[in-house]
Amino acid sequence: MTSRSPLTIYLDNAATSHPKPECVYQAVVHAMRHIGASPGRAGHRRSLEASRLLFQVREAIATLLSVPDSSRIIFTHSATEALNLALQGVLLAGDHVVTTSMEHNSLLRPLYQLRRRGVELTIVEAAGDGLVDPDAVRRAFRPTTRMLALGHVSNVCGAIQPVARLATIAREAGALFLLDAAQSAGSIPIDAAGLGVDLLAAPGHKGLLGPQGTGFLFVAEGVEIRPLLAGGTGSNSSSEEQPHILPEGFEAGTHNLPGIAGLLAGVEFVLARGVDVIGRREREHVAEVARRLAPLPGMAIHGPSFPANRSGLLSFTLAGMDASSLAFMLDQRFDIAVRAGLHCAPLAHRSLGTYPAGTVRVSPGWFTSNDEIAIFCDAVVKCIP
Amino acid sequence: MTSRSPLTIYLDNAATSHPKPECVYQAVVHAMRHIGASPGRAGHRRSLEASRLLFQVREAIATLLSVPDSSRIIFTHSATEALNLALQGVLLAGDHVVTTSMEHNSLLRPLYQLRRRGVELTIVEAAGDGLVDPDAVRRAFRPTTRMLALGHVSNVCGAIQPVARLATIAREAGALFLLDAAQSAGSIPIDAAGLGVDLLAAPGHKGLLGPQGTGFLFVAEGVEIRPLLAGGTGSNSSSEEQPHILPEGFEAGTHNLPGIAGLLAGVEFVLARGVDVIGRREREHVAEVARRLAPLPGMAIHGPSFPANRSGLLSFTLAGMDASSLAFMLDQRFDIAVRAGLHCAPLAHRSLGTYPAGTVRVSPGWFTSNDEIAIFCDAVVKCIP
Repeated sequence: MTSRSPLTIYLDNAATSHPKPECVYQAVVHAMRHIGASPGRAGHRRSLEASRLLFQVREAIATLLSVPDSSRIIFTHSATEALNLALQGVLLAGDHVVTTSMEHNSLLRPLYQLRRRGVELTIVEAAGDGLVDPDAVRRAFRPTTRMLALGHVSNVCGAIQPVARLATIAREAGALFLLDAAQSAGSIPIDAAGLGVDLLAAPGHKGLLGPQGTGFLFVAEGVEIRPLLAGGTGSNSSSEEQPHILPEGFEAGTHNLPGIAGLLAGVEFVLARGVDVIGRREREHVAEVARRLAPLPGMAIHGPSFPANRSGLLSFTLAGMDASSLAFMLDQRFDIAVRAGLHCAPLAHRSLGTYPAGTVRVSPGWFTSNDEIAIFCDAVVKCIP
Repeated sequence: MTSRSPLTIYLDNAATSHPKPECVYQAVVHAMRHIGASPGRAGHRRSLEASRLLFQVREAIATLLSVPDSSRIIFTHSATEALNLALQGVLLAGDHVVTTSMEHNSLLRPLYQLRRRGVELTIVEAAGDGLVDPDAVRRAFRPTTRMLALGHVSNVCGAIQPVARLATIAREAGALFLLDAAQSAGSIPIDAAGLGVDLLAAPGHKGLLGPQGTGFLFVAEGVEIRPLLAGGTGSNSSSEEQPHILPEGFEAGTHNLPGIAGLLAGVEFVLARGVDVIGRREREHVAEVARRLAPLPGMAIHGPSFPANRSGLLSFTLAGMDASSLAFMLDQRFDIAVRAGLHCAPLAHRSLGTYPAGTVRVSPGWFTSNDEIAIFCDAVVKCIP
């Protein structure tokens, strides 16, 4: 296990943010060294301290999402687990779901799986810039539509979907609205209660700057959901059935306490800086990338052209140059980390016209400097034969 | 978040081990600070380093379990998730399962859930000392028995089940053998291949001394299993179906890389000390507890009387004194952490005769000192009115 040079220019924050704030590292170590115990598993003071920590994190996330009741925040180990819980735990055979072509496999694959068990699925095709047309979504609704499920921001091209209008469509149709906030939590302010979001899945380790191995699902009051896992919850031990009590009935097994402690530090960091401030910086970085790269011959930058519809990540392709080769050169020659390929969202590339070769994705973060962006742009130019 | 005194005497290692070896803390921090990226999600060097780390941990676990192919080790976030995967991912309506009354809710509750979907279940009652009679298990088998599923060591009383004989019974009947190694991995040598274990679930954060939020399922070659979660796996992105490829098809979503890095350090620590050496020390500690406490008036120590059948944890009850009250006093007056109650294994207490009040459980670990055991025993004496 050798240390990588700290000089790596890391532009893969859409996969996981790096580095984390110093307080995140400290919080993880503090939880391991000084708490140590598992929450809800005993009455001793360390276990109680672990329980208090869990409560604090739920409260911080509730503040972040503007939701009133933090007990509706279920800790998961990833946004993927949160999405599986939201879909497998709510949908039944005969239900119809509307989703879009821009989705990540973490949303699409559970839906395909449910389709094999009798759930009906309509995938609304996004436009060539990655944006979903609310009218097309509305037309996809049927009397049996139980849920509208989609990502807030495309992890491929950064398109920000018109979630306020989409939430209204779902509400008016009496359907649940599931928002995959994998690429927006921490970068775009989300008023989950105001929007009328019924289910919101997010990772803890991307925009919220927590460690990998964290995530959560918010479940609005009144939404009925079944647990994905059954097991020990530290309460109701003598009940045969998994207690459907939020949150602990949905968190069977030992919590990732160090990770959750780090997530608290990350969310507090984000709240202190301001989600809008962080998001603006990320968007400024990709705007600069676009400004520098757009004039290059053969360059295509994908996603919406209007800046307000774009988040802080950017995908491009270069005519005559394979995305993977370019990413490989950036890594080998310049120690610059970007991601090339389909980004686990194959249908999105059909909408964008980049299937099957994929794109090069650049995703700066809060800690990315202007210098790093400049070096990256220069490096791309140098890689062009 | 205040730090607890380092002077806490922590005897709740059966819930999660504490402290961890120093190398575990270091490995977690190293992964966060210096690797940062996610494995299998990009081609850049940090992502490749993360992938190499995952491979190393699988190899170390394969060594620990004496299994030849480390790609059969699936990372989960807890033993609970591993058990849910093993049960939900293998059993189908019409299958019959044999288990025992000594099981944790992490095994029982998924089975109850499956019973509601048509899986048949026989729970073999253990003897009053917590041991399961292999002949009783054999008699419970039917032509439709698909699986024998049980815990290696009772988390309530430390009874070590006769797994070699039980594995033989399963094999002879053509049934799968699922071993819940939550309380044995790292404390009792396990030759999974030699025993003929088909599925083995274990946490990373108990006897293997890794961080909370880690665990794994070993799946022997030839055992057919379906993933629990669907989502991004970093490979086969354009396939609609979740790829049933071990291990990555079963690890959808971002890995808990810091946790897994810590788990590697923990497993290497365990391998270097020797599982038998660690287990012996833990058993010596509880033998001393038993020697000191047994003569107290009204004291009942539960579990097998023959030392070879006992692991390094011990449960007791004291006539006229509530288990929770005693644990509370130990915490408040002496800063000693033990656990009181049902320990998420309600049926076990019916077998042991300790339902519904439960027991006080003492579970020392590798870092527990003889002095701490002596202070604990003195403290129990002082708590008796």
